[in-house]
Amino acid sequence: MAIEPFAAVDVIIAKRERRELTAEQIAWFVDAYVRGVVAEEQMSAMAMAILLNGMTATEISRWTTAYINSGTTMDWSKLGRPTADKHSTGGVGDKITLPLVCVAAACGLSVPQLSGRGLGHTGGTLDKLESMPGWRASLTDQEMFDVIDATGAVICAASDTLAPADRRIYALRDVTATVESIPLISASIMSKKIAEGTGALVLDVKVGSGAFMKSVEQARELAQTMVSIGTAAGVATRALLTAMDVPLGRTAGNALEVTESVEVLAGGGPTDVVELTVRLAQEMFEAAGVQPSKDPADSLRDGSAMDVWRKMISAQGGSVDAPLPIATHSHVITAAHDGYLTKLDALAVGMTAWRLGAGRARKEDRVQAGAGVRWHATQGEPVLAGQPLFTLYTDDEDRIPSALDALADGFAVGDQSQIQDRLPLVIETVS
Amino acid sequence: MAIEPFAAVDVIIAKRERRELTAEQIAWFVDAYVRGVVAEEQMSAMAMAILLNGMTATEISRWTTAYINSGTTMDWSKLGRPTADKHSTGGVGDKITLPLVCVAAACGLSVPQLSGRGLGHTGGTLDKLESMPGWRASLTDQEMFDVIDATGAVICAASDTLAPADRRIYALRDVTATVESIPLISASIMSKKIAEGTGALVLDVKVGSGAFMKSVEQARELAQTMVSIGTAAGVATRALLTAMDVPLGRTAGNALEVTESVEVLAGGGPTDVVELTVRLAQEMFEAAGVQPSKDPADSLRDGSAMDVWRKMISAQGGSVDAPLPIATHSHVITAAHDGYLTKLDALAVGMTAWRLGAGRARKEDRVQAGAGVRWHATQGEPVLAGQPLFTLYTDDEDRIPSALDALADGFAVGDQSQIQDRLPLVIETVS
Repeated sequence: MAIEPFAAVDVIIAKRERRELTAEQIAWFVDAYVRGVVAEEQMSAMAMAILLNGMTATEISRWTTAYINSGTTMDWSKLGRPTADKHSTGGVGDKITLPLVCVAAACGLSVPQLSGRGLGHTGGTLDKLESMPGWRASLTDQEMFDVIDATGAVICAASDTLAPADRRIYALRDVTATVESIPLISASIMSKKIAEGTGALVLDVKVGSGAFMKSVEQARELAQTMVSIGTAAGVATRALLTAMDVPLGRTAGNALEVTESVEVLAGGGPTDVVELTVRLAQEMFEAAGVQPSKDPADSLRDGSAMDVWRKMISAQGGSVDAPLPIATHSHVITAAHDGYLTKLDALAVGMTAWRLGAGRARKEDRVQAGAGVRWHATQGEPVLAGQPLFTLYTDDEDRIPSALDALADGFAVGDQSQIQDRLPLVIETVS
Repeated sequence: MAIEPFAAVDVIIAKRERRELTAEQIAWFVDAYVRGVVAEEQMSAMAMAILLNGMTATEISRWTTAYINSGTTMDWSKLGRPTADKHSTGGVGDKITLPLVCVAAACGLSVPQLSGRGLGHTGGTLDKLESMPGWRASLTDQEMFDVIDATGAVICAASDTLAPADRRIYALRDVTATVESIPLISASIMSKKIAEGTGALVLDVKVGSGAFMKSVEQARELAQTMVSIGTAAGVATRALLTAMDVPLGRTAGNALEVTESVEVLAGGGPTDVVELTVRLAQEMFEAAGVQPSKDPADSLRDGSAMDVWRKMISAQGGSVDAPLPIATHSHVITAAHDGYLTKLDALAVGMTAWRLGAGRARKEDRVQAGAGVRWHATQGEPVLAGQPLFTLYTDDEDRIPSALDALADGFAVGDQSQIQDRLPLVIETVS
């Protein structure tokens, strides 16, 4: 038996007493946890102590490094092209990754986007893409390299060997009420993005009812923390705080969002989705320190982003032209009278899509490809009596009543003067 | 499967967010933990949240009640006599329980003292008594009743069925760095004393280097918390804060302390041990609300306390007149020059006795009956060059060097002006 340099209890006590943990303590604690020397109970107590006592920026970087060192890292240097990626903290109707990686690739970046599945009311990028018949999320390292080399972008599942310590600790945090810790959230996100090997990273930190961070202050703290971690690890990192009080675009749900993304790639689509896609692409180029080969907005008009999409999806077995799954049941909500949609709450819309079957409550749940919500008007727009406001889609008719309950207080039709204030689409930049 | 009224995560979040837990939440959380519905990881996170966020007096009483309800309780009403007990939070050389229960019984109280074994540098009452050949700590409920009925007092091991939730949670706290929580310490101590069924209770809360509580403020908080719990549970409870900056009496170690206790019962012994014994006996009578049949100090002079001792020990198989074990090795430290013992640190003396084999590092360790320390002078007393200051006893000669290390900075010989200030023996009363 190897002699351990620390006792778990002493390291927990140090955090409990708000002393800064050393690089050696953190590296050992996480590694010893992976080896089974630090027990689940001890990591649970540590996670609660971190949540309640916080961590310094230095400790957070060390904790992130320990996650990275628990697994493998990727290296894209053989591509011979600048790499950049984007990560969103999750929102409702947030399909931006789909058009964005294509725009960035069409303008000269290589985008290695290792993504995840959704949990709760926000959708996951892989869930969306998996609504396309044949599309495969799991690639070998060689397949991943080949796709990005041939098309400029790849979206696929992160391997189990990337930051495996985070995977185990995340599962533990989920049952011990220690999810809501900015240091632990930051380390979780950034360890995977740093291990992924991207050269530059843009973080889209969502703010508002439909986001994890409800206030600009919290979101700013998270953004600053993550930017510091990335910068310390040599990844050119910047962040935008963006609005998630109102859902993005016009749809929430897997196949529905793919359709909307394709509309954007075809030069159409909702203006907020287009605007945020272009803005995030610009940020990716600035972070990477390279000039785009064309204006990112042009790549949506000239079909070059769509070309990337078609190649990228096909390379992973997806049938780009095959019809997407359609839910077997739908339900339309119409406006009772003329007026304005004075309110459209992101959380309510997200919960509605979730209850319809678009999301999962537990990791092992399956999602419905066709389930979701389409809103025919968004907050601030005029509506006429009898016009459709929402269409709900699900394969399971029994889900509709509870979905309607979730939506009930999430929207209102009233006078123009009653239109709720909303956050600007891009609130601020953190770099 | 029964439907659970709460989700563990929600109850942990409530504590994490400093909301007061309800009676239902606490009763469920502890019971569900015992049933395996709340996981070890969840109790670990909860314990850390309690340690860092604290608990209101109401929550602590509820938590204590949940511990009590996890097991059986005892009932001494058939004795037809007033019961009272004492609990010490643990100190060095603290053998007070041994003479005290005899004094209290000799003066008319019945004392059901359910006790524990020591861990770390403070000794345990059962360890001390077990140094007497033949003495048995484990009694059935009937045996316990018979001993107390016949002799007025019983000292024995608490049954595993008393507050079993605390037993499990204590083991968990030990590995998760959540021992040092006044709410959890209080609940642990008080649940066992309340379940034990005593009518009155005097708490001896030790303060100083050799005690768990290093400051009067901490000790006062612990004392007040425990008095509140006891009072709320219908046990007439009061507390004394007493000195543990300097060790009690003249010996620390199992057989050594039995010998010193017998000296006290014979009307002699160190004055501080006699004084504290008599004072705590008076407090027990006041708490029980009954007049002692004689002055407690008289019971030490007239042999009546010694009579209780002989009967009580014999009733549990102990040979009162058999010689006590003597360690195979001893080592004497003498004074280098004339002067005063200016310092005698309780923690250093406790650590020395522990290293000599008198205590245990882990629950499963065995203790040496004969190991320990005798100090021939205590703080403030004059010493002459060459006189013995300490005698160290152990069955394992190899332990002596590390014991000497532990003692090295724990004492000093100097001028009268250098004598360190010490706490008064009884600092204050909390009721």
